[in-house]
Amino acid sequence: MATVNEITNRDVDFAKWYTDICRVAELIDYSSVKGSMIIKPYGYAIWENIQKILDKMFKELGHENVQMPMFIPESLLNVEKDHIEGFAPEVAWVTMGGNTPLEERYCVRPTSETLFCDHYKKIIKSYRDLPKLYNQWCTIVRWEKTTRPFLRSREILWQEGHTMHRTEEEARNETITMWHVYEKFQKEYLALPVIVGKKTEKEKFAGAEETYTIEAMMQDGVALQNGTSHYFGQKFAKAFDIEFLDQDNTMKTPYQTSWGVTTRMIGGLIMTHSDDNGLVLPPKIAPIQVIFIPIGKDEQVLNKIKDIINKLPETITTKIDLTDKSPGYKFAEAEVKGIPLRIDLGNRDLENNTVTLVRRDTLEKTTVSLENIEKTIQNTLEDIQNNLYKTAEERRNKMLHTAKNYEEFKKITNSLPGFIKINWCGEMACEEKIKDETGYKSRCILIDEKADGNCAICGKNGKHKIYFGKQY
Amino acid sequence: MATVNEITNRDVDFAKWYTDICRVAELIDYSSVKGSMIIKPYGYAIWENIQKILDKMFKELGHENVQMPMFIPESLLNVEKDHIEGFAPEVAWVTMGGNTPLEERYCVRPTSETLFCDHYKKIIKSYRDLPKLYNQWCTIVRWEKTTRPFLRSREILWQEGHTMHRTEEEARNETITMWHVYEKFQKEYLALPVIVGKKTEKEKFAGAEETYTIEAMMQDGVALQNGTSHYFGQKFAKAFDIEFLDQDNTMKTPYQTSWGVTTRMIGGLIMTHSDDNGLVLPPKIAPIQVIFIPIGKDEQVLNKIKDIINKLPETITTKIDLTDKSPGYKFAEAEVKGIPLRIDLGNRDLENNTVTLVRRDTLEKTTVSLENIEKTIQNTLEDIQNNLYKTAEERRNKMLHTAKNYEEFKKITNSLPGFIKINWCGEMACEEKIKDETGYKSRCILIDEKADGNCAICGKNGKHKIYFGKQY
Repeated sequence: MATVNEITNRDVDFAKWYTDICRVAELIDYSSVKGSMIIKPYGYAIWENIQKILDKMFKELGHENVQMPMFIPESLLNVEKDHIEGFAPEVAWVTMGGNTPLEERYCVRPTSETLFCDHYKKIIKSYRDLPKLYNQWCTIVRWEKTTRPFLRSREILWQEGHTMHRTEEEARNETITMWHVYEKFQKEYLALPVIVGKKTEKEKFAGAEETYTIEAMMQDGVALQNGTSHYFGQKFAKAFDIEFLDQDNTMKTPYQTSWGVTTRMIGGLIMTHSDDNGLVLPPKIAPIQVIFIPIGKDEQVLNKIKDIINKLPETITTKIDLTDKSPGYKFAEAEVKGIPLRIDLGNRDLENNTVTLVRRDTLEKTTVSLENIEKTIQNTLEDIQNNLYKTAEERRNKMLHTAKNYEEFKKITNSLPGFIKINWCGEMACEEKIKDETGYKSRCILIDEKADGNCAICGKNGKHKIYFGKQY
Repeated sequence: MATVNEITNRDVDFAKWYTDICRVAELIDYSSVKGSMIIKPYGYAIWENIQKILDKMFKELGHENVQMPMFIPESLLNVEKDHIEGFAPEVAWVTMGGNTPLEERYCVRPTSETLFCDHYKKIIKSYRDLPKLYNQWCTIVRWEKTTRPFLRSREILWQEGHTMHRTEEEARNETITMWHVYEKFQKEYLALPVIVGKKTEKEKFAGAEETYTIEAMMQDGVALQNGTSHYFGQKFAKAFDIEFLDQDNTMKTPYQTSWGVTTRMIGGLIMTHSDDNGLVLPPKIAPIQVIFIPIGKDEQVLNKIKDIINKLPETITTKIDLTDKSPGYKFAEAEVKGIPLRIDLGNRDLENNTVTLVRRDTLEKTTVSLENIEKTIQNTLEDIQNNLYKTAEERRNKMLHTAKNYEEFKKITNSLPGFIKINWCGEMACEEKIKDETGYKSRCILIDEKADGNCAICGKNGKHKIYFGKQY
């Protein structure tokens, strides 16, 4: 294993710190395939936890998993005009099957709206066939030029929900419901104090009527778009000629949504919670929540550890480090890998009926009684989870700024990292001016907060409160 | 839903019967993407059960999941000569990224030995890094010309284990262990009475030293290769220049295995257990094990059903059909979808303190007491699982033939479906003669049974007992 010495300090080079953590905590490795990463066992175990929790949330809401082809014939991708314009520049094209050139080239799916619509056209005939609540776990490909582990990669692991509904109201509810599922998951499990809102016309998904977004803020004040939920209206359904016979005996066009999150969330986890000593993971998503390090080789010590583990609820994942490495090396490894709670136990502890707890979030080391240790462990894990959220939220709040006019806006961009909130007229011209002149992109229009003044850029009537920020 | 009337009888057209079941039981659908299928929710739920069970078995043996890129640069695929010769004719080539032709073309992985070796070269330095026991759940692509649902498809869902070991003995043990994991899984969960053995030189995996195989026999006597485990020796490791410093301070080359099973197993399930009325699923793999059909709308009836479900162990998956379809329609649907046990309950049953059980395997209908119904349900499910295995085994045994000479062999191929066992000299010439003249391919060399006579084809010394058969 690599060590903490190989991790660049955040102050020195935040980008390098991030990739160092990815490598040193053994989450990823680079491959000979340009732009694609290898997700190593420890990184993949985080993704498996994410999948398990989200999949359960999806299924509880009635969603079903399916598997669509990974290829899309060019003619099928071309059916919806806005969609193809958004994706064509960045897809990978398969042009040969074995030694034979294909009659029609296929792209590797960059997203699967077209495939789902093609299928829905076949299987949706009557109002009885609705809603269709399908989800797919798969990988997608976007031929990015510059890539970074988890954040931007040619191949992305994700889930994509694609649903069809009888009424506009139902489809709009689904869009909002899944957006809140993502919000809840990221707040409660990933301990990310995300900001949620609606994308502007300029930033919405290619082909969508509305895009709702989850915006996380990294320690350096830069935004990470961490999940989106789209309302399509009847746009794709019309382009694909999908119709159903409604209860009133007339033919109608259904309403559609799609929603997705990716392994990018792991990047968000890292850049929110980790520190110069390595990865920090919230207990609810950590592959190993508690690591026990026996000091010495006494059988009594090992038995006591096993005894503690047996008394813990099965939901708590534990590991005993039985390798022949030195305790110091084991401590460093547990730290670099972000295991939430470390427990050291030796003969002397047994004599004193105590044990040493080391929290990864605060690096705090305490000696506690072995009496009721199971309860102490559970409480400490809960406390770590809550503390990580609170710490991230406090830091984020300090980086949420407000600008009354463009001068203030520019001054903040030059001096303070973070998001800037303004009143906005809703015109793309103002949004583009900010982007062109400062590099800040709109993050999201707030839903629960209305404009309370004129547009900070053009001075016309304010329509929305909106956040701007730099992004990954 | 489509109905049983749309299922062709097995006697009339076995191939059509199979695809009818796939469609009518709502396991798959065809797509606009030639050669690729859509796995529908009910079919995907079977795959999810397969994944859950196998993944647990793999992890209990110390395997870890990873994710490798889906693309392989041509130069990387070319490193091992036998391997590329085996796969090059059937891979899909990506030649364009967006609007730009690629400098080097990439194939979509047909299997990932080359990617794993490329990674192992980087991470295996010392004996302390061994063994590496990696597995990956993913899809692969092989550009097949003729395709059939689950059996042969351009895109295949599978898992591929790739392991590296310090010694030959350890690697050979791994190959055999995983082969037996597959055997155990298919016998115990899928209720498939599989035959296990070793592939011939001619039929082994491209690049492997030895391939161990799981051979299932379908109702029509045709073989389905249903999983393989390969021992590579040092072939790939040498081609990829992988070396480690051993405990004795010398550089050594590690030993390698790989092993995989695919969604093809679902095809094997269907063609082993199903009948002219539709799908038949073994309880241990069925997405829904018990379906309750309330007769009438009485609340008492529904409460009783809920009461029964609450008393069942959580491992038993149940569903109550609350749709407004007629009972007859519900019965037909449960039958076509192969739900192992149907339970009908109405007011009259409540009065008599009885309930009607309908087993999918035998179609037997019995009235049983509500007394201890939970235990009755559990016992019946177990009995269905065992009965499916026993029935399949008896049918298979009737289709296992022995031929002393080539004349007998040919006579059987002309009159009886199934596998034919012969003594074999081990020469490829005899194997090829059979294949060319009868269309029968070697299935597997038996491990526990030695030759007891001369080669049935050439009359020279018999080296092995071997099965031949037609295959899917």
